[in-house]
Amino acid sequence: MRIDSKDNPRFKTWLSLLESAGIRKAGLALASGGRIVNELIHHPKVRDLVEAVLLPPSSEKLPSAARQFELSDQLYERLDEYGTGSPLLVIKKPAIENWSSGDPLPEGLVVVAATSDPANLGALIRSAHAFSASAVILTKECASAFLPKTIRASSGSSFKVPLFSGPRLSELRFPPSHAPVMLDLKGKDLSEHKWLKNSAVVVGQEGQGVPESLVGERLHIRMSDNLESLNVAVAASIALYSYANQK
Amino acid sequence: MRIDSKDNPRFKTWLSLLESAGIRKAGLALASGGRIVNELIHHPKVRDLVEAVLLPPSSEKLPSAARQFELSDQLYERLDEYGTGSPLLVIKKPAIENWSSGDPLPEGLVVVAATSDPANLGALIRSAHAFSASAVILTKECASAFLPKTIRASSGSSFKVPLFSGPRLSELRFPPSHAPVMLDLKGKDLSEHKWLKNSAVVVGQEGQGVPESLVGERLHIRMSDNLESLNVAVAASIALYSYANQK
Repeated sequence: MRIDSKDNPRFKTWLSLLESAGIRKAGLALASGGRIVNELIHHPKVRDLVEAVLLPPSSEKLPSAARQFELSDQLYERLDEYGTGSPLLVIKKPAIENWSSGDPLPEGLVVVAATSDPANLGALIRSAHAFSASAVILTKECASAFLPKTIRASSGSSFKVPLFSGPRLSELRFPPSHAPVMLDLKGKDLSEHKWLKNSAVVVGQEGQGVPESLVGERLHIRMSDNLESLNVAVAASIALYSYANQK
Repeated sequence: MRIDSKDNPRFKTWLSLLESAGIRKAGLALASGGRIVNELIHHPKVRDLVEAVLLPPSSEKLPSAARQFELSDQLYERLDEYGTGSPLLVIKKPAIENWSSGDPLPEGLVVVAATSDPANLGALIRSAHAFSASAVILTKECASAFLPKTIRASSGSSFKVPLFSGPRLSELRFPPSHAPVMLDLKGKDLSEHKWLKNSAVVVGQEGQGVPESLVGERLHIRMSDNLESLNVAVAASIALYSYANQK
Protein backbone atom coordinates (compact mmCIF):
# COMPACT_ATOMS: atom_id res chain seq x y z
CA MET A 1 0.00 0.00 0.00
CA ARG A 2 1.25 3.49 -0.82
CA ILE A 3 0.66 6.58 1.33
CA ASP A 4 1.07 10.10 -0.08
CA SER A 5 -1.08 12.28 2.15
CA LYS A 6 0.10 13.83 5.36
CA ASP A 7 -3.51 13.64 6.54
CA ASN A 8 -3.54 9.86 6.36
CA PRO A 9 -4.43 8.65 9.89
CA ARG A 10 -1.73 5.99 9.88
CA PHE A 11 0.90 8.54 8.91
CA LYS A 12 -0.31 10.90 11.64
CA THR A 13 0.12 8.14 14.22
CA TRP A 14 3.62 7.32 12.94
CA LEU A 15 4.58 10.99 13.04
CA SER A 16 3.47 11.16 16.67
CA LEU A 17 6.08 8.48 17.49
CA LEU A 18 8.85 11.08 17.22
CA GLU A 19 7.77 12.37 20.67
CA SER A 20 7.31 10.65 24.04
CA ALA A 21 3.63 11.56 24.35
CA GLY A 22 2.79 9.95 21.00
CA ILE A 23 4.71 6.79 21.90
CA ARG A 24 2.82 6.49 25.17
CA LYS A 25 -0.54 7.10 23.55
CA ALA A 26 -0.10 4.75 20.59
CA GLY A 27 1.92 2.07 22.41
CA LEU A 28 4.21 1.99 19.38
CA ALA A 29 7.79 2.98 18.58
CA LEU A 30 9.70 3.85 15.41
CA ALA A 31 13.08 2.25 14.69
CA SER A 32 15.48 3.37 11.95
CA GLY A 33 18.89 2.51 10.56
CA GLY A 34 19.70 -0.22 8.04
CA ARG A 35 21.70 -2.45 10.36
CA ILE A 36 19.40 -2.01 13.37
CA VAL A 37 16.23 -2.62 11.33
CA ASN A 38 17.69 -5.70 9.71
CA GLU A 39 18.66 -7.07 13.08
CA LEU A 40 15.29 -6.32 14.73
CA ILE A 41 13.13 -8.00 12.07
CA HIS A 42 15.02 -11.24 12.70
CA HIS A 43 15.35 -11.02 16.48
CA PRO A 44 13.22 -13.67 18.26
CA LYS A 45 12.10 -11.20 20.95
CA VAL A 46 11.18 -8.46 18.49
CA ARG A 47 10.11 -9.84 15.11
CA ASP A 48 6.55 -10.60 16.21
CA LEU A 49 6.16 -7.11 17.62
CA VAL A 50 6.83 -5.43 14.28
CA GLU A 51 3.56 -3.91 13.18
CA ALA A 52 4.55 -2.19 9.96
CA VAL A 53 7.49 -1.65 7.65
CA LEU A 54 7.71 1.86 6.15
CA LEU A 55 9.53 1.90 2.84
CA PRO A 56 11.02 4.88 1.03
CA PRO A 57 9.69 5.25 -2.55
CA SER A 58 10.44 2.32 -4.89
CA SER A 59 12.48 0.30 -2.44
CA GLU A 60 12.20 -3.44 -1.99
CA LYS A 61 10.09 -5.06 0.70
CA LEU A 62 11.83 -6.46 3.76
CA PRO A 63 11.65 -10.15 4.75
CA SER A 64 9.08 -9.48 7.48
CA ALA A 65 5.57 -10.80 8.08
CA ALA A 66 4.44 -7.28 8.97
CA ARG A 67 2.40 -5.11 6.64
CA GLN A 68 4.57 -2.97 4.37
CA PHE A 69 3.77 0.60 3.31
CA GLU A 70 5.47 2.65 0.66
CA LEU A 71 5.64 6.33 1.56
CA SER A 72 6.07 9.34 -0.68
CA ASP A 73 9.47 11.02 -0.46
CA GLN A 74 8.07 13.86 1.56
CA LEU A 75 6.32 11.68 4.14
CA TYR A 76 9.24 9.28 4.42
CA GLU A 77 11.67 12.10 5.08
CA ARG A 78 9.60 13.45 7.93
CA LEU A 79 9.80 10.10 9.70
CA ASP A 80 13.44 9.33 8.82
CA GLU A 81 14.86 11.85 11.31
CA TYR A 82 18.43 10.62 10.89
CA GLY A 83 18.45 10.53 7.12
CA THR A 84 19.13 6.81 6.98
CA GLY A 85 17.37 6.28 3.63
CA SER A 86 16.48 2.74 4.79
CA PRO A 87 13.13 1.19 5.70
CA LEU A 88 11.72 2.11 9.11
CA LEU A 89 9.93 -0.20 11.52
CA VAL A 90 6.82 0.51 13.56
CA ILE A 91 7.11 -1.78 16.56
CA LYS A 92 4.70 -2.52 19.43
CA LYS A 93 6.24 -1.09 22.57
CA PRO A 94 7.06 -4.05 24.83
CA ALA A 95 5.14 -4.03 28.11
CA ILE A 96 7.02 -2.14 30.80
CA GLU A 97 6.08 -3.28 34.28
CA ASN A 98 5.95 -0.89 37.17
CA TRP A 99 8.52 -1.32 39.88
CA SER A 100 7.75 0.41 43.17
CA SER A 101 10.31 1.08 45.87
CA GLY A 102 10.91 -2.02 47.97
CA ASP A 103 9.47 -4.44 45.36
CA PRO A 104 11.54 -7.57 44.67
CA LEU A 105 14.24 -7.33 41.98
CA PRO A 106 15.60 -10.01 39.65
CA GLU A 107 18.93 -11.57 40.63
CA GLY A 108 22.13 -10.03 39.33
CA LEU A 109 22.93 -6.49 38.31
CA VAL A 110 20.04 -4.04 38.14
CA VAL A 111 20.66 -0.65 36.53
CA VAL A 112 18.57 2.32 37.66
CA ALA A 113 18.69 5.16 35.11
CA ALA A 114 17.56 8.78 35.46
CA THR A 115 19.32 10.13 32.36
CA SER A 116 17.26 12.76 30.58
CA ASP A 117 19.18 12.76 27.28
CA PRO A 118 17.89 10.05 24.90
CA ALA A 119 21.33 9.45 23.34
CA ASN A 120 22.86 8.89 26.78
CA LEU A 121 19.99 6.63 27.81
CA GLY A 122 20.36 4.61 24.61
CA ALA A 123 24.10 4.12 25.07
CA LEU A 124 23.49 3.08 28.68
CA ILE A 125 20.79 0.54 27.70
CA ARG A 126 23.17 -0.82 25.05
CA SER A 127 25.88 -1.32 27.68
CA ALA A 128 23.39 -2.83 30.15
CA HIS A 129 22.47 -5.35 27.47
CA ALA A 130 26.07 -6.11 26.51
CA PHE A 131 27.03 -6.71 30.15
CA SER A 132 23.85 -8.73 30.86
CA ALA A 133 22.15 -6.52 33.41
CA SER A 134 19.08 -8.42 34.64
CA ALA A 135 16.87 -5.29 34.51
CA VAL A 136 16.94 -1.58 33.77
CA ILE A 137 14.63 0.57 35.91
CA LEU A 138 13.77 3.94 34.39
CA THR A 139 12.99 6.58 37.03
CA LYS A 140 10.39 9.29 36.47
CA GLU A 141 13.17 11.71 35.46
CA CYS A 142 14.42 9.39 32.73
CA ALA A 143 13.93 9.92 28.98
CA SER A 144 11.73 7.46 27.08
CA ALA A 145 13.51 4.26 26.06
CA PHE A 146 11.49 4.22 22.84
CA LEU A 147 12.22 7.59 21.29
CA PRO A 148 13.80 7.11 17.85
CA LYS A 149 17.04 8.62 19.21
CA THR A 150 17.12 6.31 22.23
CA ILE A 151 16.44 3.23 20.10
CA ARG A 152 19.17 4.28 17.67
CA ALA A 153 21.76 4.94 20.39
CA SER A 154 20.79 1.64 22.06
CA SER A 155 21.45 -0.12 18.76
CA GLY A 156 18.06 -1.81 19.23
CA SER A 157 18.73 -2.96 22.80
CA SER A 158 15.71 -0.95 24.04
CA PHE A 159 13.61 -3.86 22.77
CA LYS A 160 15.75 -6.59 24.28
CA VAL A 161 16.54 -5.57 27.85
CA PRO A 162 13.93 -6.12 30.61
CA LEU A 163 12.75 -2.57 31.39
CA PHE A 164 10.77 -1.39 34.40
CA SER A 165 9.14 1.93 35.15
CA GLY A 166 10.27 3.19 38.56
CA PRO A 167 9.53 6.04 40.98
CA ARG A 168 11.38 9.35 41.20
CA LEU A 169 15.11 9.16 41.93
CA SER A 170 14.60 10.64 45.41
CA GLU A 171 12.00 7.98 46.28
CA LEU A 172 14.12 4.92 45.49
CA ARG A 173 14.33 2.24 48.15
CA PHE A 174 15.72 -1.21 47.45
CA PRO A 175 14.79 -4.61 48.86
CA PRO A 176 17.37 -6.20 51.23
CA SER A 177 18.35 -8.66 48.47
CA HIS A 178 20.23 -5.98 46.51
CA ALA A 179 23.14 -3.76 47.55
CA PRO A 180 22.50 -0.20 46.31
CA VAL A 181 25.48 1.51 44.71
CA MET A 182 25.38 5.19 43.65
CA LEU A 183 27.64 6.55 40.97
CA ASP A 184 28.93 9.87 42.23
CA LEU A 185 31.78 12.36 41.91
CA LYS A 186 32.86 11.48 45.42
CA GLY A 187 32.95 8.26 47.39
CA LYS A 188 34.95 5.04 47.33
CA ASP A 189 37.20 4.40 44.33
CA LEU A 190 35.28 2.13 41.93
CA SER A 191 38.41 0.05 41.30
CA GLU A 192 38.46 -0.97 44.99
CA HIS A 193 34.82 -1.98 45.11
CA LYS A 194 33.96 -5.64 45.67
CA TRP A 195 30.70 -6.17 43.85
CA LEU A 196 28.00 -8.31 45.37
CA LYS A 197 26.24 -10.52 42.84
CA ASN A 198 22.95 -8.75 43.53
CA SER A 199 23.63 -5.06 43.10
CA ALA A 200 21.53 -2.08 42.04
CA VAL A 201 23.58 0.65 40.35
CA VAL A 202 21.95 4.08 40.41
CA VAL A 203 22.92 6.44 37.59
CA GLY A 204 21.80 10.02 38.21
CA GLN A 205 20.76 12.83 35.91
CA GLU A 206 23.27 14.57 33.67
CA GLY A 207 25.13 17.22 35.64
CA GLN A 208 23.14 16.57 38.81
CA GLY A 209 24.21 13.18 40.10
CA VAL A 210 22.37 11.18 42.72
CA PRO A 211 20.42 12.93 45.54
CA GLU A 212 22.36 13.00 48.82
CA SER A 213 19.39 11.53 50.67
CA LEU A 214 19.67 8.15 48.94
CA VAL A 215 21.17 5.47 51.13
CA GLY A 216 23.82 3.20 49.65
CA GLU A 217 27.51 2.93 48.89
CA ARG A 218 28.83 5.84 46.81
CA LEU A 219 31.44 5.03 44.20
CA HIS A 220 33.46 7.39 42.04
CA ILE A 221 35.72 6.81 39.08
CA ARG A 222 39.20 8.06 39.86
CA MET A 223 40.38 10.47 37.22
CA SER A 224 43.79 11.94 36.78
CA ASP A 225 42.26 15.37 36.44
CA ASN A 226 39.83 15.64 39.28
CA LEU A 227 38.21 18.78 37.98
CA GLU A 228 36.67 16.79 35.16
CA SER A 229 33.76 14.44 34.88
CA LEU A 230 32.72 11.82 32.37
CA ASN A 231 29.69 11.49 30.14
CA VAL A 232 27.00 9.79 32.22
CA ALA A 233 26.64 6.78 29.88
CA VAL A 234 30.44 6.39 29.83
CA ALA A 235 30.67 6.51 33.63
CA ALA A 236 27.82 4.03 34.07
CA SER A 237 29.30 1.68 31.47
CA ILE A 238 32.66 1.69 33.25
CA ALA A 239 30.83 0.60 36.41
CA LEU A 240 29.02 -2.17 34.50
CA TYR A 241 32.34 -3.29 33.04
CA SER A 242 33.84 -3.40 36.51
CA TYR A 243 30.94 -5.58 37.74
CA ALA A 244 31.06 -7.89 34.71
CA ASN A 245 34.80 -8.25 35.12
CA GLN A 246 34.48 -9.53 38.68
CA LYS A 247 31.64 -11.95 37.89
CA MET B 1 26.84 46.20 19.91
CA ARG B 2 23.53 44.81 18.71
CA ILE B 3 23.08 42.78 15.50
CA ASP B 4 19.67 42.31 13.89
CA SER B 5 20.42 41.53 10.26
CA LYS B 6 21.12 38.09 8.92
CA ASP B 7 23.27 39.80 6.25
CA ASN B 8 25.65 41.15 8.83
CA PRO B 9 29.11 39.77 7.87
CA ARG B 10 29.97 38.82 11.45
CA PHE B 11 26.72 36.91 11.79
CA LYS B 12 27.36 35.13 8.51
CA THR B 13 30.77 34.01 9.76
CA TRP B 14 29.27 32.78 13.06
CA LEU B 15 26.57 30.89 11.20
CA SER B 16 29.24 29.14 9.14
CA LEU B 17 30.69 27.72 12.38
CA LEU B 18 27.83 25.20 12.55
CA GLU B 19 29.63 23.21 9.80
CA SER B 20 33.17 21.81 9.53
CA ALA B 21 34.03 23.77 6.39
CA GLY B 22 33.18 27.10 8.03
CA ILE B 23 35.20 26.24 11.12
CA ARG B 24 38.23 25.41 8.98
CA LYS B 25 37.89 28.56 6.89
CA ALA B 26 37.33 30.99 9.76
CA GLY B 27 39.65 29.30 12.27
CA LEU B 28 36.91 29.81 14.86
CA ALA B 29 34.49 27.64 16.83
CA LEU B 30 31.17 28.18 18.57
CA ALA B 31 30.61 26.93 22.14
CA SER B 32 27.24 26.79 23.88
CA GLY B 33 25.74 25.72 27.19
CA GLY B 34 25.60 27.75 30.42
CA ARG B 35 27.96 25.57 32.44
CA ILE B 36 30.44 24.96 29.61
CA VAL B 37 30.57 28.65 28.60
CA ASN B 38 31.06 29.75 32.19
CA GLU B 39 33.89 27.29 32.61
CA LEU B 40 35.62 28.20 29.32
CA ILE B 41 35.70 31.99 29.91
CA HIS B 42 37.66 31.34 33.11
CA HIS B 43 39.89 28.52 31.91
CA PRO B 44 43.57 29.60 31.68
CA LYS B 45 44.06 27.74 28.38
CA VAL B 46 40.92 29.13 26.76
CA ARG B 47 39.96 32.56 28.14
CA ASP B 48 42.41 34.45 25.90
CA LEU B 49 41.14 32.62 22.83
CA VAL B 50 37.58 33.87 23.29
CA GLU B 51 36.95 36.30 20.48
CA ALA B 52 33.33 37.22 21.06
CA VAL B 53 30.44 36.64 23.43
CA LEU B 54 27.04 36.36 21.72
CA LEU B 55 24.20 37.34 24.01
CA PRO B 56 20.50 36.58 23.61
CA PRO B 57 18.34 39.75 23.69
CA SER B 58 18.52 41.80 26.90
CA SER B 59 20.78 39.44 28.80
CA GLU B 60 23.67 40.51 30.99
CA LYS B 61 27.24 40.65 29.76
CA LEU B 62 29.62 37.90 30.83
CA PRO B 63 32.80 38.55 32.84
CA SER B 64 35.04 38.23 29.76
CA ALA B 65 37.51 40.62 28.13
CA ALA B 66 36.13 39.62 24.73
CA ARG B 67 33.82 41.84 22.71
CA GLN B 68 30.15 41.20 23.47
CA PHE B 69 27.34 41.29 20.92
CA GLU B 70 23.63 41.28 21.56
CA LEU B 71 21.71 39.36 18.89
CA SER B 72 18.08 39.59 17.91
CA ASP B 73 15.95 36.62 18.96
CA GLN B 74 15.86 35.29 15.44
CA LEU B 75 19.64 35.45 14.89
CA TYR B 76 20.42 34.09 18.34
CA GLU B 77 18.13 31.11 17.83
CA ARG B 78 19.84 30.15 14.59
CA LEU B 79 23.19 29.91 16.38
CA ASP B 80 21.87 28.32 19.59
CA GLU B 81 21.38 24.89 18.01
CA TYR B 82 20.71 23.18 21.32
CA GLY B 83 18.26 25.72 22.67
CA THR B 84 20.42 26.56 25.68
CA GLY B 85 19.13 30.14 25.97
CA SER B 86 22.56 31.11 27.38
CA PRO B 87 25.34 33.25 25.90
CA LEU B 88 27.46 31.62 23.19
CA LEU B 89 31.21 31.94 22.76
CA VAL B 90 33.15 32.43 19.53
CA ILE B 91 36.57 30.97 20.25
CA LYS B 92 39.76 30.92 18.17
CA LYS B 93 40.37 27.31 17.19
CA PRO B 94 43.55 26.20 18.95
CA ALA B 95 46.39 25.31 16.57
CA ILE B 96 46.27 21.61 15.63
CA GLU B 97 49.67 20.29 14.63
CA ASN B 98 50.03 17.66 11.96
CA TRP B 99 51.22 14.26 13.05
CA SER B 100 52.53 12.01 10.28
CA SER B 101 52.99 8.25 10.60
CA GLY B 102 56.27 7.48 12.37
CA ASP B 103 56.60 10.95 13.93
CA PRO B 104 57.54 11.06 17.62
CA LEU B 105 54.69 10.98 20.14
CA PRO B 106 54.46 12.50 23.62
CA GLU B 107 55.02 10.12 26.54
CA GLY B 108 52.05 8.35 28.08
CA LEU B 109 48.74 7.36 26.58
CA VAL B 110 47.98 8.60 23.08
CA VAL B 111 44.43 8.17 21.74
CA VAL B 112 43.91 7.84 17.99
CA ALA B 113 40.30 8.57 17.02
CA ALA B 114 38.50 7.89 13.72
CA THR B 115 34.95 8.38 15.03
CA SER B 116 32.72 10.09 12.51
CA ASP B 117 29.88 11.02 14.86
CA PRO B 118 30.54 14.34 16.63
CA ALA B 119 28.73 13.28 19.82
CA ASN B 120 30.85 10.14 20.06
CA LEU B 121 34.03 12.10 19.35
CA GLY B 122 33.14 14.66 22.02
CA ALA B 123 32.48 12.00 24.66
CA LEU B 124 35.78 10.34 23.74
CA ILE B 125 37.74 13.61 24.01
CA ARG B 126 36.09 14.23 27.37
CA SER B 127 37.24 10.82 28.62
CA ALA B 128 40.75 11.34 27.15
CA HIS B 129 40.96 14.56 29.13
CA ALA B 130 39.60 13.05 32.35
CA PHE B 131 42.07 10.16 32.18
CA SER B 132 44.97 12.46 31.18
CA ALA B 133 45.78 11.18 27.73
CA SER B 134 48.90 13.02 26.54
CA ALA B 135 47.48 13.57 23.04
CA VAL B 136 44.50 12.82 20.83
CA ILE B 137 45.26 12.22 17.16
CA LEU B 138 42.31 12.73 14.82
CA THR B 139 42.56 10.63 11.65
CA LYS B 140 41.26 11.87 8.31
CA GLU B 141 38.03 9.89 8.87
CA CYS B 142 37.35 11.65 12.15
CA ALA B 143 34.68 14.33 12.75
CA SER B 144 35.81 17.86 13.58
CA ALA B 145 36.67 18.38 17.24
CA PHE B 146 35.24 21.91 17.01
CA LEU B 147 31.71 21.35 15.75
CA PRO B 148 29.22 22.75 18.26
CA LYS B 149 28.02 19.20 18.93
CA THR B 150 31.53 17.86 19.54
CA ILE B 151 32.39 20.74 21.87
CA ARG B 152 29.16 20.21 23.77
CA ALA B 153 29.64 16.44 24.13
CA SER B 154 33.27 17.03 25.15
CA SER B 155 32.03 19.38 27.88
CA GLY B 156 34.64 21.89 26.60
CA SER B 157 37.55 19.41 26.63
CA SER B 158 38.06 19.94 22.86
CA PHE B 159 39.87 23.16 23.85
CA LYS B 160 41.96 21.60 26.59
CA VAL B 161 43.37 18.34 25.23
CA PRO B 162 46.45 18.41 22.94
CA LEU B 163 45.00 17.54 19.53
CA PHE B 164 46.89 16.45 16.41
CA SER B 165 45.74 15.97 12.87
CA GLY B 166 46.77 12.54 11.60
CA PRO B 167 46.72 10.45 8.40
CA ARG B 168 44.02 8.02 7.32
CA LEU B 169 43.36 5.10 9.66
CA SER B 170 44.84 2.63 7.18
CA GLU B 171 48.09 4.64 6.95
CA LEU B 172 48.86 4.72 10.68
CA ARG B 173 52.36 3.66 11.72
CA PHE B 174 53.71 4.33 15.20
CA PRO B 175 57.24 5.12 16.39
CA PRO B 176 58.98 2.32 18.38
CA SER B 177 58.48 4.32 21.60
CA HIS B 178 54.73 3.49 21.69
CA ALA B 179 52.96 0.13 21.79
CA PRO B 180 49.98 0.24 19.40
CA VAL B 181 46.76 -1.22 20.75
CA MET B 182 43.66 -1.64 18.57
CA LEU B 183 40.17 -1.81 20.05
CA ASP B 184 38.38 -4.58 18.25
CA LEU B 185 35.53 -7.07 18.57
CA LYS B 186 38.07 -9.88 18.68
CA GLY B 187 41.50 -10.21 20.26
CA LYS B 188 42.91 -10.47 23.77
CA ASP B 189 40.60 -9.73 26.68
CA LEU B 190 41.17 -6.11 27.76
CA SER B 191 41.09 -7.12 31.42
CA GLU B 192 44.19 -9.29 30.90
CA HIS B 193 46.19 -6.63 29.12
CA LYS B 194 49.31 -5.25 30.82
CA TRP B 195 49.55 -1.66 29.64
CA LEU B 196 52.90 -0.17 28.78
CA LYS B 197 53.29 3.41 29.96
CA ASN B 198 53.69 4.57 26.36
CA SER B 199 50.71 3.21 24.47
CA ALA B 200 48.74 4.36 21.45
CA VAL B 201 45.09 3.23 21.53
CA VAL B 202 43.41 3.17 18.13
CA VAL B 203 39.63 3.66 18.13
CA GLY B 204 38.05 2.83 14.76
CA GLN B 205 35.01 4.16 12.98
CA GLU B 206 31.51 3.43 14.21
CA GLY B 207 30.42 -0.01 12.99
CA GLN B 208 33.63 -0.60 11.05
CA GLY B 209 36.37 -1.07 13.62
CA VAL B 210 40.07 -0.95 12.86
CA PRO B 211 41.43 -2.10 9.45
CA GLU B 212 42.90 -5.62 9.57
CA SER B 213 46.11 -4.39 7.99
CA LEU B 214 47.09 -2.33 11.02
CA VAL B 215 49.84 -3.93 13.08
CA GLY B 216 49.48 -3.99 16.86
CA GLU B 217 47.88 -5.83 19.73
CA ARG B 218 44.12 -6.29 19.36
CA LEU B 219 42.04 -6.01 22.50
CA HIS B 220 38.37 -6.66 22.99
CA ILE B 221 36.01 -6.02 25.85
CA ARG B 222 34.50 -9.26 27.06
CA MET B 223 30.74 -9.08 27.11
CA SER B 224 28.30 -11.53 28.53
CA ASP B 225 26.32 -11.39 25.34
CA ASN B 226 28.85 -11.76 22.58
CA LEU B 227 26.44 -10.81 19.84
CA GLU B 228 26.44 -7.26 21.10
CA SER B 229 28.82 -4.37 20.84
CA LEU B 230 29.23 -1.13 22.75
CA ASN B 231 29.01 2.48 21.72
CA VAL B 232 32.45 3.45 20.38
CA ALA B 233 33.03 6.21 22.95
CA VAL B 234 31.97 3.86 25.73
CA ALA B 235 34.33 1.11 24.54
CA ALA B 236 37.25 3.52 24.19
CA SER B 237 36.58 5.03 27.61
CA ILE B 238 36.61 1.59 29.22
CA ALA B 239 40.06 1.04 27.68
CA LEU B 240 41.27 4.43 28.98
CA TYR B 241 39.90 3.55 32.42
CA SER B 242 41.78 0.26 32.30
CA TYR B 243 45.02 2.09 31.45
CA ALA B 244 44.53 4.79 34.10
CA ASN B 245 43.75 2.13 36.68
CA GLN B 246 47.09 0.37 36.14
CA LYS B 247 49.15 3.58 36.13
